[in-house]
Amino acid sequence: MSRYWSSVVHRIVPYTPGEQPKLTNLIKLNTNENPYGPSPKVLEAVKAEAADTLRLYPDPNSDRVRAAVAAYYGLTLSQVFAGNGSDEVLAFAFLALLKHEEPLLFPDITYSFYPVYCRVYEVNYETVPVTGDLAIRLEDYLRPNGGIVFPNPNAPTGRSVALSEIRELLEKNTESVVVIDEAYVDFGAESAVTLIDRYPNLLVVQTLSKARSLAGLRVGFAMGHPLLIEALDRVKNSFNSYPLDRFAIAGAVAALEDRGYFEETRDRIVRTRETLVGKLRELGFDVLPSAANFIFARHPGMDAVELARRLRERSIIVRHFPLPRIEQYLRITVGTDEQCGILASSLAEILEPSFAGKSRSRS
Amino acid sequence: MSRYWSSVVHRIVPYTPGEQPKLTNLIKLNTNENPYGPSPKVLEAVKAEAADTLRLYPDPNSDRVRAAVAAYYGLTLSQVFAGNGSDEVLAFAFLALLKHEEPLLFPDITYSFYPVYCRVYEVNYETVPVTGDLAIRLEDYLRPNGGIVFPNPNAPTGRSVALSEIRELLEKNTESVVVIDEAYVDFGAESAVTLIDRYPNLLVVQTLSKARSLAGLRVGFAMGHPLLIEALDRVKNSFNSYPLDRFAIAGAVAALEDRGYFEETRDRIVRTRETLVGKLRELGFDVLPSAANFIFARHPGMDAVELARRLRERSIIVRHFPLPRIEQYLRITVGTDEQCGILASSLAEILEPSFAGKSRSRS
Repeated sequence: MSRYWSSVVHRIVPYTPGEQPKLTNLIKLNTNENPYGPSPKVLEAVKAEAADTLRLYPDPNSDRVRAAVAAYYGLTLSQVFAGNGSDEVLAFAFLALLKHEEPLLFPDITYSFYPVYCRVYEVNYETVPVTGDLAIRLEDYLRPNGGIVFPNPNAPTGRSVALSEIRELLEKNTESVVVIDEAYVDFGAESAVTLIDRYPNLLVVQTLSKARSLAGLRVGFAMGHPLLIEALDRVKNSFNSYPLDRFAIAGAVAALEDRGYFEETRDRIVRTRETLVGKLRELGFDVLPSAANFIFARHPGMDAVELARRLRERSIIVRHFPLPRIEQYLRITVGTDEQCGILASSLAEILEPSFAGKSRSRS
Repeated sequence: MSRYWSSVVHRIVPYTPGEQPKLTNLIKLNTNENPYGPSPKVLEAVKAEAADTLRLYPDPNSDRVRAAVAAYYGLTLSQVFAGNGSDEVLAFAFLALLKHEEPLLFPDITYSFYPVYCRVYEVNYETVPVTGDLAIRLEDYLRPNGGIVFPNPNAPTGRSVALSEIRELLEKNTESVVVIDEAYVDFGAESAVTLIDRYPNLLVVQTLSKARSLAGLRVGFAMGHPLLIEALDRVKNSFNSYPLDRFAIAGAVAALEDRGYFEETRDRIVRTRETLVGKLRELGFDVLPSAANFIFARHPGMDAVELARRLRERSIIVRHFPLPRIEQYLRITVGTDEQCGILASSLAEILEPSFAGKSRSRS
């Protein structure tokens, strides 16, 4: 505390990101990073930016990134906004489009950055409980509101909402902006981007951090009606003229253009996830259906904190949220087949010590 | 305008950065970029980041950058904050430290992003007129205020304030934060960083965009008392966990470590500036004393807009601000000797058409 702080600083409760340990030799399944590196074409493109031209400002509007997103999804440039990671894009959306007199609505179990944005920007909000099995039920959002935001699939549950339900929500909720945070959409949910021509109040936010393996590059984007994009532009241009550096611009374009690599690695992760879910269920875990690159699971026989601690002893890091309703769950990122194999056998050892060291075929 | 916009979007008046033309073959003297590329060690360091590790999030606190700044200036890690360009760092400072009941004070002629931040964050402010010869007089700031911010040297005038005057201000102004925006300090002003151990309300902001030739990389930082840094951290962690990507972190560290290259290119720019100032004065320009990598000049014989237009016809871009008190000035970035030579001879042709083509020795 300091007398020099503004009231905003006193009010806020900052977001705590998942741990980024500086140790190596860890199996890091705590921040939903992709186990596969980015496309070789991305590496080529960013290398080419290591040049004299770094002395020059980047394009303030990141037009090449916007054009690549537009080409990928069949949109126009005016329907796309690019930012320094989808967290920045979401922050702009909260300030520009979700701050109104009526409360913003989002699920009670969701990305924990949402209430943080609300506090820093003084956005009035109410949470809407997910169902008993942690699903988002969109009919619960049909009430007076100043905006609606939810991830699809939801984090940290991994559960998705069908496009038909989103369309129904948009038919009925026309007076406020609906933001769909599709950070994990490529791993198994349907993108709502196909609806933006029809609904001028729909904003879809995506990131290159997950399915494009570029968490280290910081690129996110939003897609929607040009007037929604203009609002984001106005806020961005009141904050930082050049949020994307030259590497981010070049790498993002190459990642969006290399569809083959993206689809191949994405499919591999989905297959690994299905195998992992099967193994965890065999071990007695209660695993939610996941449309993401992580799973959300609890074990009736062991406390989640204890389980996380024991995994850590084995150099495996997963994420635990000490929050009501989900304090018995662990969120586990889908790694490589090898990493997930080690995870499953470690869990087997922890849960069934008598079987430790025995091969799966004997159990 | 859209009914979906928040009142913030209606209120703001976005900043317009200097033009970033996509044409090549221009002599671009409009955005104060360095004419020399970054250190070869920076290029090496960023190339090494083009790797598989891009799949992983960067360090959210950019500790390596903070440590490099701390080592450079003899500070501790807790006295340094790093952000995505000094514009982002300034934005955080406006929200975290300069928003209070009493008005924030800054010069009437200064970086035009300051009033933009005030509008987006609803910071109450008053401008303090610079003197007749466009100098900042710090005794004019000794009145009730919620904060003070000014660049040293000032932009777009290039005029600097002596460290002794800053010390005097800090002795008398102890109840609010004083932010000194030192984007251009390396080209001829004294940094106030030596004062931060003594004054807990002093925040010094710098950038790698100018003297370190890294406008394309987006790295800025702030230095001050740990409690001021904590305020910036809290705001940053309510906005975007990872503002610096892996390239920005690696490049910034290498740039701060290569003192030799920095000093050599900085000295070269200062020498070119002095030569250019001499030539422009010979041509009848009224040139303000500059401590930056740009000069601010007017010519009694020709309107500034007309002069800028005629330079543009010759593929030379300079910056003009259509603002009261300075609408007859042009801000001209110091380029290479060759670029400044072409600029000076072009100006000679424009101003003295009868001498066009004649050699300097005959005039």
